[in-house]
Amino acid sequence: MSKANKRPGGRSSRVRKAVFEAVEGLLVERPGDLPSMASIAERAGVNPTSLYRRWRDVRILAGEVAVDRLMRELPVPDTGSLREDLIGWGASAARGLSTRRSVSLLRIMAATPPSGETDLRKLPIARRLEELDAMLSRAKKRGEPTPVLGDVLELVLAPIYLAALFLGPIRDTRDVARLVDRAIALQATSR
Amino acid sequence: MSKANKRPGGRSSRVRKAVFEAVEGLLVERPGDLPSMASIAERAGVNPTSLYRRWRDVRILAGEVAVDRLMRELPVPDTGSLREDLIGWGASAARGLSTRRSVSLLRIMAATPPSGETDLRKLPIARRLEELDAMLSRAKKRGEPTPVLGDVLELVLAPIYLAALFLGPIRDTRDVARLVDRAIALQATSR
Repeated sequence: MSKANKRPGGRSSRVRKAVFEAVEGLLVERPGDLPSMASIAERAGVNPTSLYRRWRDVRILAGEVAVDRLMRELPVPDTGSLREDLIGWGASAARGLSTRRSVSLLRIMAATPPSGETDLRKLPIARRLEELDAMLSRAKKRGEPTPVLGDVLELVLAPIYLAALFLGPIRDTRDVARLVDRAIALQATSR
Repeated sequence: MSKANKRPGGRSSRVRKAVFEAVEGLLVERPGDLPSMASIAERAGVNPTSLYRRWRDVRILAGEVAVDRLMRELPVPDTGSLREDLIGWGASAARGLSTRRSVSLLRIMAATPPSGETDLRKLPIARRLEELDAMLSRAKKRGEPTPVLGDVLELVLAPIYLAALFLGPIRDTRDVARLVDRAIALQATSR
């Protein structure tokens, strides 16, 4: 983590808060559009140059805001059962993707620069993946059959996103449970 | 299929071609932005009213253009082996998603109106799903263990899209082969 991102407190953290609120505010007003660095700087009352220095590209900034919102709105559950944790997590992800506001989040993520800049884009999402990994570690310690993070992403999260993008969002928790049960069963049998 | 969409030939099909070319052209010029109906109409030399009458919303139109491009650029293979067909199809989908141009396609799909309008958005993508279903039917007739369409989408296509959106596109065909093998193995054991 770079020095500019350190926490807590201080001027840096106040700027971050103001900038994130500016991005959120602009997204609420115009849900489909990625705001410009200039409009964010103006609304947050900071110098555009310092925005560019810290985030380089508005899409990187928007990606951080999106993951930040994700972590606030969809905390990773800790019920004592991996199956319940995964269903709760998957269902809230699916629910989140069925609202207009969160689909605009998905658009932002999709707008993040693709190939060639994977290190940059991994930065925001990495925080989220750590949370999920901690959920899996807890289950493993309890002795439950525990899929690896990659399998959970592929077998549970990916179908939820594909549905939201192309086929209409998943609304029935039983559909999420089916995905979770498949991931756990594969783990229990194949390793 | 509505009367307005019928083919071949005639004025309707010429308008469709001009409109699709206008959308593609505008997207090439400004890859991130969904063009307006007015700008599409102007470029295609048609009346905006007729655009609205036929497509109702620029996102529905853009979705049709996106699926049309998908079907032209990534034809569904027919090698005589389901495993090879699926790997070829998945690998070309992954390759497609690693380019800037196709990620802008993904953005368009993500921008398509979500909940409540599933019938409308199913219209363009349905054509693509029919192609895939035909691939699976051929395999089934040959007597191969054949996953249902939903499982292919969830187990093969979804992880490819998730990777392109969040983790960096899949570049190694062996990763696609792993997804395909899992889908086929699940089919062979569980039914």
